[in-house]
Order: sequence, then structure tokens, then C-alpha cells
Amino acid sequence: MATTVKKFVVGIDIGGTNTKFGVVDRDGEIIEQDRVLTNAHTQVADFITDIYDKLMPMIKRAGGADKFAGIGVGAPNGNYYTGNIEYAANLQWKGIIPLANMMAEKFGLPVKLTNDANAAAMGEMEYGCARDMKHFITITLGTGVGSGIVIDGKIVLGNDGFAGELGHTIIRPGGRLHKGTGSKGCLESYASATGVRATALELLESRKGTPSLLRDIKDPELITSQTVYECAIKGDPIANEIFEFTGQILGEALANFVMFSSPEAIVFFGGLTKAGDLILNPTRRAMEENLIQVFKNKVKLLYSQLKEADAAILGASALAWDDK
Amino acid sequence: MATTVKKFVVGIDIGGTNTKFGVVDRDGEIIEQDRVLTNAHTQVADFITDIYDKLMPMIKRAGGADKFAGIGVGAPNGNYYTGNIEYAANLQWKGIIPLANMMAEKFGLPVKLTNDANAAAMGEMEYGCARDMKHFITITLGTGVGSGIVIDGKIVLGNDGFAGELGHTIIRPGGRLHKGTGSKGCLESYASATGVRATALELLESRKGTPSLLRDIKDPELITSQTVYECAIKGDPIANEIFEFTGQILGEALANFVMFSSPEAIVFFGGLTKAGDLILNPTRRAMEENLIQVFKNKVKLLYSQLKEADAAILGASALAWDDK
Repeated sequence: MATTVKKFVVGIDIGGTNTKFGVVDRDGEIIEQDRVLTNAHTQVADFITDIYDKLMPMIKRAGGADKFAGIGVGAPNGNYYTGNIEYAANLQWKGIIPLANMMAEKFGLPVKLTNDANAAAMGEMEYGCARDMKHFITITLGTGVGSGIVIDGKIVLGNDGFAGELGHTIIRPGGRLHKGTGSKGCLESYASATGVRATALELLESRKGTPSLLRDIKDPELITSQTVYECAIKGDPIANEIFEFTGQILGEALANFVMFSSPEAIVFFGGLTKAGDLILNPTRRAMEENLIQVFKNKVKLLYSQLKEADAAILGASALAWDDK
Repeated sequence: MATTVKKFVVGIDIGGTNTKFGVVDRDGEIIEQDRVLTNAHTQVADFITDIYDKLMPMIKRAGGADKFAGIGVGAPNGNYYTGNIEYAANLQWKGIIPLANMMAEKFGLPVKLTNDANAAAMGEMEYGCARDMKHFITITLGTGVGSGIVIDGKIVLGNDGFAGELGHTIIRPGGRLHKGTGSKGCLESYASATGVRATALELLESRKGTPSLLRDIKDPELITSQTVYECAIKGDPIANEIFEFTGQILGEALANFVMFSSPEAIVFFGGLTKAGDLILNPTRRAMEENLIQVFKNKVKLLYSQLKEADAAILGASALAWDDK
């Protein structure tokens, strides 16, 4: 039986609000893309049909399913081993959803599934700045802190498929409460947009005597990582201290990750990376300070090379190439 | 060419004082063993000759080199990728020593090398309680804290071969100084025999009003993890608090490791494990408290099943089987 050369894959990113999907080629170019509302359907089967109706015409325009290596899906609590979405808190389908099997049946293509943070790492390895790397870690600094760990060219999934929850590692024992998990002092409580905002509110309170542009913002709801950034680049001392503090904690955590898996690089994604050197400089300094000699001045800190708007689809699509 | 069935391997454990070696079979039985002084020779070549002269008769008695799959070596700062011992602080041979190549030439057998902590993990996977596991972590609680990480059935070596230095991860930022590395608050400064002793001295000072059997020890040099253990089993409150504190910190660190690689089990080696439940109970409690939901009540905490006297040779020998 002749096999057709597989030129394309499909990437599907299931988010809390939107599900984005697209046809992707070997070079990581998105040929066509579209989206549906994730929560428009109470039944998963209807959700899949919705995607199918929009995606099949794209697949046909690209030459038909024969040209496709498969479908990769990034989803909250997606388990690579089982292909299931398991107890995802921010999706309306409860319990265990055998999404990969259901999609494979509908599309007649192989379907692979993982969580969104692992998908981001896969995207960086397939199309981004980690193309030649066997050992790296991706850290997404967004509303929360996500992570994907690659060792020997493979995503670390662990015994149950849920490995790589670095945002939940404890870096300030007994520290700031994480409302979602109840744990105290985890990385996500500090090195996320939410954490930066919390640090801002704390510092504005504890540095009552220090003037700050942030004090001009009358509604505390409007103090965000973005406004802190805007004040910091104007030289505001408290705004700068917020990023110093955030970088210090992030750097300490990175040192621990390096001493675990000794990666070639750590690649950053997410909104908070817009703060650039304001956060990266203290991060690098704290990381190096906490590494033992053998690891010092070895590990690269890089920004993702994938366009943020494309990264989710690209990451999911990377799962689907045959060699994964 | 007919190949002989490989029934044996050699395991060599290079320690700061003694180098132990032996012939090991598939079941992890040490058929014969011997030792030499590690520092008796200023030249590595003479050290290798010393081992050769004692080991070759054993190999012959076991049926000759044909029956051997190879030689595995555990050594401080042993690098699996290069086969070199690199800048080992407690060996007299300085710089980079191409030990695996030198031994392979001398013995005419394949030689594999790694550090002693990784060798311990290999031994547990080949002969011990991790025989059916693909994902586990070994933690050696001795004078220091060593670690070996197994993911997908392979030791995690990282980009440079030095991964898995979990004893140096920071768990009390800004905490107790580690004299060897200069870092503050690393796991090894607390959860080692040295750390238990330091905690004892601190607590005896800060709990001046609390009576303790440990105060009967007049020479503070004689306060060791062993004497703390002896007092703890007699119900001494300070001695018990020392293990509670040690277990608390170890458990927090283990939670972080679990959220990194999601192992099936964590296997403990080393002298401090003799404290048994005194340390394991608070360790387990603190670990579970700091895990997010998806990891809770999943990870087994186990003691090594290898006899302590044999573990070093067995671990090194496990490297040498063909399938590694």
C-alpha cells in the first residue's frame, strides 16, 4: 500500500472560552484557522461536530485527510497516556472525557492529546527556539504559571501523565495562599500576573511612605501586571521593586528546576514576559546565585519565538507529527 | 560469530576512602568482592592496575571475560555521557579523568560510569524495589543528600550529565548556610546526618528551658543523628522535634519533586533512614500537605531493599547490563 507523504497536521487548542484550531505545515505555518466557543455545547459530541463542520472543509482544501499525519489537541487536564480530559475545573464537561478517542472516530485520523503547557513545549521543540534541544523547560508566565519539561527530546509525563506542574512547587514555605489549591508559597502565587498584582498591593501597603505612580490609580482593581509594567518603565521605585521581588522568587525556583533536570535552556511564554529585562535580569541573577558551581553560567534563558496568537494551535499541532 | 550468554557484570564503587568491587549476577547476587584504598596511588593508571590484579582472578573464576556483559562504575562526579570523572573534590586525581576509557582498554570490556547517586537508582531499578517501575526517585539520606531520578525507565542526566542534584535544591530561601557550596537553605543542610546534628545544636540552644537527654552529652561533638535517634526512641521531646522538623522540610522538598516528575515512588537509602517512622511520618505528612490534588495519596515512600553493604557495588554493576 502506497503511503502519501504527510504534509500537514491539525492543531486544536481547547481553552476555557474559545477553542482554536488550524491546519499547520512542517515549517509551523498556519495555513488556515478558525474557532468555536468551547462552552456552546453541553454535550462533548456536539462540540466535536461543531469543530468537524468547520475543520473538514479546511482539510479538503489542503488536499484531503490523506495528506495529514494527524490531529494534536491541547486541553486543560489533558492526559497524553489516556487521551482523556480528566476533571478539568474550567470546562463544563465534568469527569473523564475520552476526547482523543471520540475525535479519532469522527475524523478517521490519529489524535493525540496533552495539556496546554506541554503543548507549548512541543510547539517550541517542533517550530521554535528549542528545535535543536533535547533538554529544556518552558515556563508560561500568564494569569498562572504553566510548565512543560523536555528530557531526552520527550515531554516528561510521569507515572500518571500529570508531571510538570512547576507553578505549584513551593518556593516560600508557609507563604502567600493560593486560592485555587489552598497551598502556601507556591511559585504561581508570585510569578504570575495575579502574583505581580498581589505583590503590588502588598508593597503599596507596606511602603506607605514611598511615593509611587501606582498610588494615582484610585481603583485597586485597575492595578495589574500591565500597569505595574507601565510605571516601572517610567522609573517608579515601587513598580521596579515589584519586578525585582518577582524575579528573585522566579530565579530561585528556576535554580531548583535546573538542579533537577539540567536543561540547556528555559524558554518563557506568556503575558508577563512583556516586562522583559525588568523581570528577566533579577530572575537570572537569583537563579545563578542559587545554583551550585557545576550548573553556573550554563543555562540559557530565552523568550519563545512563536507568535503568541499562533502558539496554542502550533503547540497542539506539534503533537501530531509521526515522530512524536 | 557465536555470542556467549552474558551471565555476569562487574560493579565498582569508587568512594573517598575505599573502592569496592565485585562480580554480580542477573539476580543481584554478589559472587565475589574485594576492595582497594582509593588514594593509595597518585596515578590513576596504578589505581586501575591495582583493581585489575584483584579483579581478573575473580573474572576468571566466574568463567572468563566472555561471560561478562561489562563493567559499571559509580564515582563522585562521574559523567555518564563522557565516561570521565570531572573535578571530584574528594579524590586526589584532579581535573578530568577519562576513567571509563582507561578501564575499557585495560579490561577489554565495555565500561559505563555514572555518579554514585545515579548508580544507587540503577541498582534499585535492576535488583531492588523499583524493578517494575518506570518513574521513581531515589534519595540517599547520609552525610549529605544524594539523588537519582528515573523517568521512562532511564536515569535523568540532563544536558551536561549532571542532572539530579536534589540535595542542593533550595527549600528554605535564605536559610542555613551550606559550607561546601555557599548556598543558603538547601535540602542537604537539613535532611542529612549533618543537618540533623545542626538542627539538634540549634534547638538545644533555642529551647534552653526544655529538658532533654541530649543535654547529658557533654561533648557537643558527640551529638549526632545516631544519638538524636537514640534519645528520640526514648521519648525525648527535643529529639522528636528534631526529626519532626527534618521530616517537615524533607516532605516539602519531596512535594516539589513529585510535581516535577510525578514518580510512582520515592525510594530512600542511607544511614538516616534508620530513624524509620520518626522521620518518615512527618515527611509523608508534609509531602501530602504540599501536593496539589491530582498528586495526593499516589506516591509511595519506600525504603531501599538492597543491603546497605552491597548497595554501592550492585548499583554500579547495574549500569553494565546490555539493556542500559
